[in-house]
Amino acid sequence: MKKIFTLGEIVVEIMANQKGQLFTQDGIWKGPFASGAPAIFIDQVAKLGEQAAMISCVGNDGFGELNIKKLQSDGVDISNISIINDQTTGSAFVTYHEDGSRDFIFNIKNSACACINEEMVSQNILQDCDHLHIMGSSLFSKTIFNTAKKAIDIVKQNNGTISFDPNIRKEILHSPGVKDALLFILKQTDIFLPSESEVTLLTNTDNEKQAIDYYLNNGISSIVVKKGNKGASYYSRKEFFDISPHLVKEIDPTGAGDCFGGAYIALIHRGLTPRTALTYANACGAIAVTQQGPMQGTSTLEQIEKFMQQEKN
Amino acid sequence: MKKIFTLGEIVVEIMANQKGQLFTQDGIWKGPFASGAPAIFIDQVAKLGEQAAMISCVGNDGFGELNIKKLQSDGVDISNISIINDQTTGSAFVTYHEDGSRDFIFNIKNSACACINEEMVSQNILQDCDHLHIMGSSLFSKTIFNTAKKAIDIVKQNNGTISFDPNIRKEILHSPGVKDALLFILKQTDIFLPSESEVTLLTNTDNEKQAIDYYLNNGISSIVVKKGNKGASYYSRKEFFDISPHLVKEIDPTGAGDCFGGAYIALIHRGLTPRTALTYANACGAIAVTQQGPMQGTSTLEQIEKFMQQEKN
Repeated sequence: MKKIFTLGEIVVEIMANQKGQLFTQDGIWKGPFASGAPAIFIDQVAKLGEQAAMISCVGNDGFGELNIKKLQSDGVDISNISIINDQTTGSAFVTYHEDGSRDFIFNIKNSACACINEEMVSQNILQDCDHLHIMGSSLFSKTIFNTAKKAIDIVKQNNGTISFDPNIRKEILHSPGVKDALLFILKQTDIFLPSESEVTLLTNTDNEKQAIDYYLNNGISSIVVKKGNKGASYYSRKEFFDISPHLVKEIDPTGAGDCFGGAYIALIHRGLTPRTALTYANACGAIAVTQQGPMQGTSTLEQIEKFMQQEKN
Repeated sequence: MKKIFTLGEIVVEIMANQKGQLFTQDGIWKGPFASGAPAIFIDQVAKLGEQAAMISCVGNDGFGELNIKKLQSDGVDISNISIINDQTTGSAFVTYHEDGSRDFIFNIKNSACACINEEMVSQNILQDCDHLHIMGSSLFSKTIFNTAKKAIDIVKQNNGTISFDPNIRKEILHSPGVKDALLFILKQTDIFLPSESEVTLLTNTDNEKQAIDYYLNNGISSIVVKKGNKGASYYSRKEFFDISPHLVKEIDPTGAGDCFGGAYIALIHRGLTPRTALTYANACGAIAVTQQGPMQGTSTLEQIEKFMQQEKN
């Protein structure tokens, strides 16, 4: 059985206990929760029973241990996660505003995961890999971009496929080299997973339809647009369809898009049709927002099917 | 009026809510609290009405803002604290064991305060400085050591004095260059403020009396040994005395030693005798352990005197 790989940041998330809580005043926080967009993605892949592996780094501390244990217990191959002495596992503090928006204080680009480097990727390490998922959020240094590039080259040589979730804040696009890096990954991408606000981000148009056409004319075989509480849309040369959202009580949206992406890629990898995979992914994302903690919301196939059954009734 | 300066780390502290809480499981935390040993020290100096300034760096984030506001509102000159874009303010997570010991996860040496550098120190910046305090915990990079060295040279040239609190874990002593750095600072030191376990740390003897003699014979004019809940001891060529502890209910010991040191140096700077300064510092440290949050325990002269009055009754 072939493996899905990802590479990128592993962090703990520390969550404000109350809406309106500030970084500038003391308050109550909950955590640490296992997190990091690619880590959540790959945890979800493993939970659906596909072979899954992650390339990353953590510090030699409790926060790294927490993440490794969570990934391992959910079935992720952790043999390519390095523990770096004298470095601290990445972290993200998050506060919630009344309007649903969030603020973050990240320690990622100077944390242990900044130690991800090209030597962590080789033909040997990726020999079983037939699909590689890249998150835009992971490409925060030239070294990590080069590592992703090397991994993509190897997987492509082995006739594997690439999925790509831009997962990036607009402001960061203007940092030196970032847009070029994302455009490079996009060129190698088979399955593109932007959120609604990211659909046109890497094109020269503001028009969604034109952006989708551009992608389909430039080597991308399918696009799944994640629309949060508005569902999702699928585009390929052969078909186009929307999936309706599930209406659930939102507890914590963090990580829901990564669960959605992980479920979709896992089920496509298993051989399901895009429509079926997306139906499950949509339910998986809905379940995720009902759970506090970014990686706490990952689901098994059984849990997703139970949720879908309840929704039907 | 002349100023007391310090340089070094500014961090926020995030404290486990319960004894026995782990880094590897989610739980409840309290914070962020303004922290960093030299920051607590200088906050205490300012609270006692002495002119006080700090040289440091924070990130352009809420945690940096919290610290700067706290220091400024307590009277510290913050004009030499730089706000560094693209860096995160340092942080320390702390858990408490049943036996009173603590565990930490630090993000300091790759945080904003690692940006402290020699250009932040000059004859002009230190023109009003007649006393400089150095914490061993701040000397975590060659660049910061060189910055401290440059500051010491300038202050000494201007006939100022140096105080030094080794404030360092034994394990770190064996890191390359650390012991040499501490020994260099020790040579320049006028007032030495080790904790009980640190008295012999930078000598070739295990005998306290011999270590004290060595210091007094090598340019140090006075030594104050901080003994926590056992009080403190004072040594100079002229006199030796102990100060009895205050018996208080310990809420949080973090930062108490820094409050003690800040109070002692502030009051010596004001011209009080060592015995009087130490009596106040001893009370100041006792008050600090009754407050949660490392920098929350700093006291005004009025608060210290009120506490001492209550203790008498």
